[in-house]
Amino acid sequence: MSLPRTRLEGPGGEVVIADDEPFVLIGERINPTGRRRLTEELIAGDMTTVRDDARRQVEAGARVLDLNAGIPGFDEPAMLAAVVRAVREVVDVPLCIDSSTPEALEAAVPLAEGKVLINSVTAEERSLERLLPLVARFGAAVIGMANDEQGISMDPERRLAAARRIVEAAADHGIDRADVIIDPLTMPVGAASDAATSLLATVRLVREELGVNVSCGASNVSFGMPARPEIDAAFLAIAIAAGMNAAIANPLHREVRKAVLATDVLLGRDPAGARWIADHRAEAAARGG
Amino acid sequence: MSLPRTRLEGPGGEVVIADDEPFVLIGERINPTGRRRLTEELIAGDMTTVRDDARRQVEAGARVLDLNAGIPGFDEPAMLAAVVRAVREVVDVPLCIDSSTPEALEAAVPLAEGKVLINSVTAEERSLERLLPLVARFGAAVIGMANDEQGISMDPERRLAAARRIVEAAADHGIDRADVIIDPLTMPVGAASDAATSLLATVRLVREELGVNVSCGASNVSFGMPARPEIDAAFLAIAIAAGMNAAIANPLHREVRKAVLATDVLLGRDPAGARWIADHRAEAAARGG
Repeated sequence: MSLPRTRLEGPGGEVVIADDEPFVLIGERINPTGRRRLTEELIAGDMTTVRDDARRQVEAGARVLDLNAGIPGFDEPAMLAAVVRAVREVVDVPLCIDSSTPEALEAAVPLAEGKVLINSVTAEERSLERLLPLVARFGAAVIGMANDEQGISMDPERRLAAARRIVEAAADHGIDRADVIIDPLTMPVGAASDAATSLLATVRLVREELGVNVSCGASNVSFGMPARPEIDAAFLAIAIAAGMNAAIANPLHREVRKAVLATDVLLGRDPAGARWIADHRAEAAARGG
Repeated sequence: MSLPRTRLEGPGGEVVIADDEPFVLIGERINPTGRRRLTEELIAGDMTTVRDDARRQVEAGARVLDLNAGIPGFDEPAMLAAVVRAVREVVDVPLCIDSSTPEALEAAVPLAEGKVLINSVTAEERSLERLLPLVARFGAAVIGMANDEQGISMDPERRLAAARRIVEAAADHGIDRADVIIDPLTMPVGAASDAATSLLATVRLVREELGVNVSCGASNVSFGMPARPEIDAAFLAIAIAAGMNAAIANPLHREVRKAVLATDVLLGRDPAGARWIADHRAEAAARGG
């Protein structure tokens, strides 16, 4: 099955997720989970770190930014809207609105300008019913996590079944196959030694059987291990070569940025290494400055 | 076809190249090509750098050492024998004797102790006829480069045909399939954007069609590009995931060492990340010391 091209758009232009395009790194940093200072700033309505992270991630090669403002007990719709506004003051890339709360999406998506990616639905009936009508109404693309009411399976065939349910439910809502990106679920390899191999098998199955693009939250693979960016880097290289065309990861880790750029060179997605050489020169210039 | 296990041996024990073993990094440094100081030392009979490189590579995770002493115009048999003797004074890992000169192999292999890897034959008739009898006599394993009289093809099917010729000729000399490792040929990606994808396709074909282990000279992929270790690292991660169980590379580049160790974690070849964590602790201790 030939893979469709998933088109996202921001004020600065479009970004396409496809086999013949450069890999799309979605910057993960604007997320209060585990970030105390960012959490405190968001609660205080201070967007300093949000703006800095937006700028720095785009400079480091993020072509889309994931925005999450979920802090238990606080007003997610208002906070997410404020984050979108702040990010739009400083960068013009497409946005990935990271919420499963309809009210937060209602508040944030219209401020994002262009065609957003909504992160995420699961194969659970309640998730599909609540969120897919919104995805359709906004003309957005959506990330579908390959888990269902039974939770997360380590069996690639069961993940495929959950992914199939999402793709079919999306079609029922008039959402094009090109606008569904499946996340095969990244589990920590420190907890399950087949975490990465199970993911890679799911990537291949989802591509072959459902013919949709695949993305994942890459950093989770190294959770609990030392030297995490080095694991994330090797994981991204392998997953991209297996057919993953986008991932949510941290472009501020040099290992991650370099792995993504090097893999584009190796897979023939950076002819003559033009972007690789430009990145090298930018690094040299930054050291010199 | 199930892959055989390629067993090498040094005085310190055996190293096995196989799908269910950790990846085998073969240290590339003891090679005068492009190394002026090493060249001058070898000519003067000074083994200081040879011994240092042997020790440092093994400390950095090389489980086999490639030894090359080819300097045009000099006595390769005597020089290679001297290198083997010097290396054996300091490390006990299996050796990969890197010469296509029968006289050099005659002089060096008997000094190596254990079961060596000979690097390399090609599918050219003259190479097979000169070298395979020696491989058989020494009870060695051999690397077969997938090129023939027509040179190096970018077509994976033509590389497979050359590899098949080597495996068949080896069988004619009584050499077991387990003792033939095919090198699918690593071309610089800066010169041909399909260099890595062609290699990966050949890795899969050779495994499926011939059922033999695959190794390569990894560093060549980044020839002519800046930031070479970062490209080599991504390349190794991808190639290992595609089924390559050994490679000749530079373990002294941290990016390379980390990519190999991380890929073992990701592929389930380092249960609970024990070796990954040990490497991290050794690095921390080295920084502390």
